[in-house]
Amino acid sequence: MTSSVHTSTTTPVTPVVPSTGALRPLGLDEVVLTGGFWADRQRVNGAATIPHCDHWETRVGWIDNFDRALDGTLAEHRTGREFSDSDVYKMIEAMAWEVGRTGDHVLEARIAELTAQIGAVQEPDGYLNTRFGRPGQPPRWSDLAWGHELYCVGHLVQAAVARLRTGHDDELVAIARRAADQVCAEFGPDGRDAVCGHPEIEVALVELARATGERRYLDQAALFVERRGRGTLPDIELGREYYQDDVPVRDAEVLRGHAVRALYLTAAAVDVAVETGDAGLLAAARAQYERTLARRTYLTGGMGAHHQDEAYGDDFELPPDRAYCETCAGVGSVMVAWRLLLATGEAAWGDVVERSLYNVVATSPAQDGRAFFYTNPLHKRVPGETAADDEVSKRALSRLRAPWFEVSCCPTNVARTLAALGGYVAAVSDDALHVQQYAPARIRTRLGDGRSVGIDVETGYPVDGDVRVRVVDAPAGEWTLALRVPAWAADGATVDGEPAVVDAGEVRVRRAFAAGDEVRLVLPVAPRVTAADARIDAVRGSVAVERGPVVLCAESVDLPGGADVAGLRVDADVAVRADGDGARLTGRLVPAADADWPYGVPGPDGEPVPVDLRLVPYHSWANRGPSTMRVWLPTT
Amino acid sequence: MTSSVHTSTTTPVTPVVPSTGALRPLGLDEVVLTGGFWADRQRVNGAATIPHCDHWETRVGWIDNFDRALDGTLAEHRTGREFSDSDVYKMIEAMAWEVGRTGDHVLEARIAELTAQIGAVQEPDGYLNTRFGRPGQPPRWSDLAWGHELYCVGHLVQAAVARLRTGHDDELVAIARRAADQVCAEFGPDGRDAVCGHPEIEVALVELARATGERRYLDQAALFVERRGRGTLPDIELGREYYQDDVPVRDAEVLRGHAVRALYLTAAAVDVAVETGDAGLLAAARAQYERTLARRTYLTGGMGAHHQDEAYGDDFELPPDRAYCETCAGVGSVMVAWRLLLATGEAAWGDVVERSLYNVVATSPAQDGRAFFYTNPLHKRVPGETAADDEVSKRALSRLRAPWFEVSCCPTNVARTLAALGGYVAAVSDDALHVQQYAPARIRTRLGDGRSVGIDVETGYPVDGDVRVRVVDAPAGEWTLALRVPAWAADGATVDGEPAVVDAGEVRVRRAFAAGDEVRLVLPVAPRVTAADARIDAVRGSVAVERGPVVLCAESVDLPGGADVAGLRVDADVAVRADGDGARLTGRLVPAADADWPYGVPGPDGEPVPVDLRLVPYHSWANRGPSTMRVWLPTT
Repeated sequence: MTSSVHTSTTTPVTPVVPSTGALRPLGLDEVVLTGGFWADRQRVNGAATIPHCDHWETRVGWIDNFDRALDGTLAEHRTGREFSDSDVYKMIEAMAWEVGRTGDHVLEARIAELTAQIGAVQEPDGYLNTRFGRPGQPPRWSDLAWGHELYCVGHLVQAAVARLRTGHDDELVAIARRAADQVCAEFGPDGRDAVCGHPEIEVALVELARATGERRYLDQAALFVERRGRGTLPDIELGREYYQDDVPVRDAEVLRGHAVRALYLTAAAVDVAVETGDAGLLAAARAQYERTLARRTYLTGGMGAHHQDEAYGDDFELPPDRAYCETCAGVGSVMVAWRLLLATGEAAWGDVVERSLYNVVATSPAQDGRAFFYTNPLHKRVPGETAADDEVSKRALSRLRAPWFEVSCCPTNVARTLAALGGYVAAVSDDALHVQQYAPARIRTRLGDGRSVGIDVETGYPVDGDVRVRVVDAPAGEWTLALRVPAWAADGATVDGEPAVVDAGEVRVRRAFAAGDEVRLVLPVAPRVTAADARIDAVRGSVAVERGPVVLCAESVDLPGGADVAGLRVDADVAVRADGDGARLTGRLVPAADADWPYGVPGPDGEPVPVDLRLVPYHSWANRGPSTMRVWLPTT
Repeated sequence: MTSSVHTSTTTPVTPVVPSTGALRPLGLDEVVLTGGFWADRQRVNGAATIPHCDHWETRVGWIDNFDRALDGTLAEHRTGREFSDSDVYKMIEAMAWEVGRTGDHVLEARIAELTAQIGAVQEPDGYLNTRFGRPGQPPRWSDLAWGHELYCVGHLVQAAVARLRTGHDDELVAIARRAADQVCAEFGPDGRDAVCGHPEIEVALVELARATGERRYLDQAALFVERRGRGTLPDIELGREYYQDDVPVRDAEVLRGHAVRALYLTAAAVDVAVETGDAGLLAAARAQYERTLARRTYLTGGMGAHHQDEAYGDDFELPPDRAYCETCAGVGSVMVAWRLLLATGEAAWGDVVERSLYNVVATSPAQDGRAFFYTNPLHKRVPGETAADDEVSKRALSRLRAPWFEVSCCPTNVARTLAALGGYVAAVSDDALHVQQYAPARIRTRLGDGRSVGIDVETGYPVDGDVRVRVVDAPAGEWTLALRVPAWAADGATVDGEPAVVDAGEVRVRRAFAAGDEVRLVLPVAPRVTAADARIDAVRGSVAVERGPVVLCAESVDLPGGADVAGLRVDADVAVRADGDGARLTGRLVPAADADWPYGVPGPDGEPVPVDLRLVPYHSWANRGPSTMRVWLPTT
């Protein structure tokens, strides 16, 4: 465990930069992904996904709304849901990180263009929303429960923070500050005693305070966090727990209600706690998230068991077929875990980040980056239909990845996360460099004590577990290279051929390194069989197969004749061997025949047929056409 | 199998009276429940539930809406959801059957009073709805998808049919006929090419045709059935399958979408098919319902796996904890199965009626008849909260029985079903009396060939399986006493001490009976262990216990120290013995402890503690305070 506390001197180019905490994050300028799984996805994100989002936001009119505000026809012609402004802002945030990463001039120009459109419709007092406040529209702040006005400002602010951190104190920043100032004036201690139905403004205002040094934004965020849970939002059919307005944040015991809302709020609670030194609030947020991980999280790291309200279910209510696991909740979980990692220095939070990145965030986009899963169930009973390239999907019915949604929060959330991904790879403490995620990378930074350090990472992870870290810039004296060892690897990891000594989720190599020194960490990524807590009734009598951080699944396209995965059986102690990026095992297919009534005297299964079964990474499923799929394999 | 076809001469006092079919139903005047399980519930229904509904419909203003229509303040002051008129009509239907059953003068006067209120607001052309058509209200028929206008007329008509069949050709009948005539004029072959978002008008119009002899009502019902599935309703986020407007009725393969809508529509399809001699439509409706029973039905007979849309899930997607199993869907399933029984004479449909009556319909009302389950899940993970006596519950959050709901379709649906329950007990064919449900009863009727017949039934069923049928009115010559033998009893049933010869779900005793003759059927109601089709993943590795037609469950109030049912385990071949109206077995309780992460290497359960476990009828659960509960018991 790292107990030192860093004090930030320069500001890293990354979304989350606490002013204090056990670890200092590194920026996109300090960590460059040079190849492999995540670099590939970053490349597709920049080349395909971000332009795809721009294409669609133009096509469906969400960008055009800003021009219509200007020409006075907005009340009549506005398109999109009440939160559509936010998707424009999230796209700009993605563009901003991408510009920061690559220096892309075309994107830079596009940001300027969008900024001009947005700025032109900002009211003199700073208020900015295309949906409220004009003649023919509902008045400002007239629907805090569902209107998403503060949520939209939050995403505007996060885009502005991305601009600031990437070195552009530009008009977008000015716009966002005016909007944030208006929020502070309207909702301050003497203002409206109210919160937004969808948390988001809170994380944004903390980050704006961090980026600008303006304390009032932090105070406003803290006020919003404290106000929540006190019933200022209306009681609704789903209950106030839907938007976490049922119990004050520091009194709650577990995440509940709408998963994305709950996770954004928890991220904000951690941020506020860190900035204000509020140990009680930090402990409360942490305990809630820990219980959520222990009882309300899918094997993939996905969260949200209910379709009805995109919400957490009861403890251990985790149906794989009806899993909602919204992509944005995967992003939200990364946000919380990363903040806890920075605050505490506990490497195990990196396990959570990794699981959610590989199995939720990476699952959403199609290989070509132009279609997305909104929900990420772990079992698909009926082959889905491929959405047409020009079709706007309804989220609840999206059975396969779709190019765009009426509620299209997920594509831009994936885009902004992937563009800034380098920021989640490593962090530093006083005299240690902590590598959190393993990918080919070039890392050049300074330790907390000011010494410059540089390493290059080479690895085929997660397909193989061999991670070679070469020191290229070695400061004088001893320092620690700390390498995260995931919980699943604790028993088999080696460092330079010796069993790794794992302490609190890290192996630490401390010495006076010389340039050219290499440390070799080998993680046991061979496929392994995983069972679930017996209280997760929905997967009783089943096992899953994981390979390193990657959850695998069976897809019917890999079965003889495209047989339904419903008939698959495996032995509980089945031998599994690696195969490509997946695994292979001998399973069985049992035939099924309908009875008039599917309940009766217990009897044996039908006569099983052995089958050579290939398992593929869950994140890759449904890239080969419609298929039935399952992560959990029933045992014989 | 009974192949004869009856032709109705007199009209039985019962909700469904086909003009043709294998069996003729008997009326409330022909079948009197004299004691036991169902007579008790009928008594509570009349004494408590019907007055309770009247109290609440008055209190929440749904009855008052009719007076406000009259005084012109309705547009301003209307209360209740868009379908609240229908709950007034369903209550009147319940009152009408209750008057028919008991001759209750107070209820009769109340019906007259309500009729006057309703009639006073009927428009001159027959249109009748408190929600549409007045200044300040949406225009008539302006929201067919969600407005429920035709649905409301349907329930008005069914109340009127109940009045007609119980001998009252009164003002309510005249009102309903005017409303039905207006519907025929508006939606006839040359009228609006449209259907209602919620099927119901169809079954109602067929029954009105049957009750009045007016063919045009049948034709209109047939037209509505044919029109559905052709996309006249708007495409919505849930898809047109939500209201079965996705595929024409005769082309569909399974029930899908909103369960109550699907079941009401299927009942209507059977009705139309029977009245028009449309064998293709009958076969289609039957095949869809059969596949639904084989793949989309809970052990309780409950239907609807999704909360989001109160809808069927995919085949074999039947999570017990998240089961919706709306009470009204249980009523709807009884409606379909009973119609198929009358049409085909196949006794097995009586099994479906029985299962749904005991395990869904009987589960909804509390012992005192003053609180109701809206949803009927088979697993409760968290002890629910008891609703306050004066609290209107939100259906989606109702965790235990509640006195009333914002959407309060279920209480009145239970009330009308229980009041008319005698009508589901027996039926006749040409020369046979078919006893379908076993309860102490006095049955006096005529066979299809005109001979009068009378029997008395004495039994402690379903707690014991001994059914004694005494012939009290024996016609001259041979006739058949046909006794349904449920599928679960096929192997152990005896008749007069000899193994029963079961043919197509019935044992048939044919002879020239003399008055005083007794036939004794013994059904093996000892508790039995039941397993599920392996494709129902959510209950893999678990068994249930049934006792006769009754599904049993474990409730935490019966466990030592109120231990959570989550830790229960039983051997797959556990010995179960009868105990009171439930069962008793030796199970185990395994302790559970949270891990940080609930997935990992397969390991053994904790050290189990033997426990003497009492199982109670599922229909009785939650009558002893908050409890966790489960029907499916994990095996060791």
